[in-house]
Amino acid sequence: MAPISFARGAPTPECLDAALVADCARAALERDGTTILSYGAGGGYGPLRETLAARHGVDAGRVFLTTGGLQGFVFYAAAQLARKPGRVLVEAPTYDRPLKILEREGAEVVALPMDDEGLDLDALEAELRRGGDISFLYTIPTFQNPSGRTLGVERRQRLVEFARAHDLAVLEDDPYGLVRYEGAMPPSLHELDGGSRVTFTSSFSKTVAPGLRVGYFVVGADLAAAYDDRAVSTYISPSLLPQAIVFELMDRGGFEPNLERVRGLLRARRDAMLSALDSHAPAGASWSRPEGGYFLWIEFGAGVDSTALLARAIEAGVTFVKGSDFFPGGSAGTSAARLAFSYETPERIADGVTLLASLLLARG
Amino acid sequence: MAPISFARGAPTPECLDAALVADCARAALERDGTTILSYGAGGGYGPLRETLAARHGVDAGRVFLTTGGLQGFVFYAAAQLARKPGRVLVEAPTYDRPLKILEREGAEVVALPMDDEGLDLDALEAELRRGGDISFLYTIPTFQNPSGRTLGVERRQRLVEFARAHDLAVLEDDPYGLVRYEGAMPPSLHELDGGSRVTFTSSFSKTVAPGLRVGYFVVGADLAAAYDDRAVSTYISPSLLPQAIVFELMDRGGFEPNLERVRGLLRARRDAMLSALDSHAPAGASWSRPEGGYFLWIEFGAGVDSTALLARAIEAGVTFVKGSDFFPGGSAGTSAARLAFSYETPERIADGVTLLASLLLARG
Repeated sequence: MAPISFARGAPTPECLDAALVADCARAALERDGTTILSYGAGGGYGPLRETLAARHGVDAGRVFLTTGGLQGFVFYAAAQLARKPGRVLVEAPTYDRPLKILEREGAEVVALPMDDEGLDLDALEAELRRGGDISFLYTIPTFQNPSGRTLGVERRQRLVEFARAHDLAVLEDDPYGLVRYEGAMPPSLHELDGGSRVTFTSSFSKTVAPGLRVGYFVVGADLAAAYDDRAVSTYISPSLLPQAIVFELMDRGGFEPNLERVRGLLRARRDAMLSALDSHAPAGASWSRPEGGYFLWIEFGAGVDSTALLARAIEAGVTFVKGSDFFPGGSAGTSAARLAFSYETPERIADGVTLLASLLLARG
Repeated sequence: MAPISFARGAPTPECLDAALVADCARAALERDGTTILSYGAGGGYGPLRETLAARHGVDAGRVFLTTGGLQGFVFYAAAQLARKPGRVLVEAPTYDRPLKILEREGAEVVALPMDDEGLDLDALEAELRRGGDISFLYTIPTFQNPSGRTLGVERRQRLVEFARAHDLAVLEDDPYGLVRYEGAMPPSLHELDGGSRVTFTSSFSKTVAPGLRVGYFVVGADLAAAYDDRAVSTYISPSLLPQAIVFELMDRGGFEPNLERVRGLLRARRDAMLSALDSHAPAGASWSRPEGGYFLWIEFGAGVDSTALLARAIEAGVTFVKGSDFFPGGSAGTSAARLAFSYETPERIADGVTLLASLLLARG
């Protein structure tokens, strides 16, 4: 049997509606086939850019569709580091792939601590006062990867005030925000800023299908030309059909019902994981309780080495990503892990948590 | 009326069979929807990698599907420049977009002259003997962009011998080779080399549809890991549906009939351009007569400034790309141009050539 994966930050296959995607492909090609099959703009399929621009209250020339969100991060980081060289501030822990890109770009990365309410703003303020140039702050404020944490509303307001006061560029990465199971959606930093200082990015990987690779960036007016140049000189235009499929889905009113279905499937998985942890986790362990998203963050407790635990877990048939992978240089998180509840069935999630708990108890 | 475009190196809209693409999308999603809609390998959709690997006689782990050919050039150039820093040799003239990427990478580019038989191999030999490190040679041996020229068979053999003798890495870019209207297809450098020294790249932009953005690279075994790392850390995996569509088209035996149809449409356009040039071009002009592809190269004649001619042509309603755009630093080609015959109807091609000829005569 395949191992139970708490490592894969991917939607469970049930989320992926192949028949719906095929029907949207057919409709899109019927309506606009020549455009979809020709070279297009570096920013991607026009009608989807327009739709997203309207959603975010910006000009369509500031919306760029990319091969998933990560490709856009490559463009943003290169363009912003060229425009304003300086330190890059990230959350600790944070999504590991951008860390690797920043390393390749030769950027100096400063990791700022978080707590249950998200980024520690006193630490951000201290870093801003330290002087020297800062290129940008990279943050995932809602259902963060890897921690599942969400930045509180007051902190969001304070962060945007800091950004104004210090002319700080912010990259707000929000692939999970719409995958909310309960509670109210806080305003995005982009909305609160209302200007060009915050670049917003999201994708349809967590709401429609990751294999389509449709991400998007809403960049500041001052960054649009540099961003466009990177896109055009990398691939002329991105693959247009997946973007036209997403447009068709939104245009026919199918996005929301599909999202509601996806939310239901994933909520059941989050509930299964929390309930299994509540029942089986040994004393000393603690974990986040996200209102949405794909992940939770677990501290196994003092003295637990999550690298050693992972080795034993793989042998026993369950996988996760160890916490240190999400800190620059692996400097922390050695007794923590990211547990993705998005991929497995509720039954397998319960089994996997029970297994992990038994491994933790066995060492006591 | 829209200007007559000899600038667009894109297939005429008639080439793009939206209904066929939609049917392949439906069939692919029906057969393999979960895989296509999930995250996949950095190298792209497995079955298409397998098919192309079999065509080129290599292991599938050496085939990488990319967002069009250009995206792969970005990966190849970065990986090869890191692995073996040194000069990059290109043809003069050559495709302008790679020149821009090389410039961004900070590479030292050396432009080697061509004649009607393609790259001048004596010039290549002299450059190889000059000493110092060479990172790689970038060549488009068949129906070259922008010149339409094809490297002769003997030169191909000699080039591969040079590559062996000097351990020269070669990137063979062949997006046009299958779009042949007459004459025999020469062996590829990759075939002649039979090893890992020549990296081969092609795409389905000129044979199926550019908007799908399906390019591929057959890299040397020694470059595969570095290449894979670039791909994964740029977009995790590329858009899989367009690749699955191409696989479905090949698997059902639809690729060759579609290619034959595309060849017919484009052959008529090449014939229209050559025939109009034969009838109307003023004395002093000369041009290539490609057996396939999308472009021909025209030398307007001594004393003609193609930048000034282009300005007048745009006013008169016809566009082209001026020759100097295809030389590093715009150092040559000032009385030349690339004429794409791929995009317009034969009637508009005849009209456009007549217009251009009248502008050339008017200045005499």
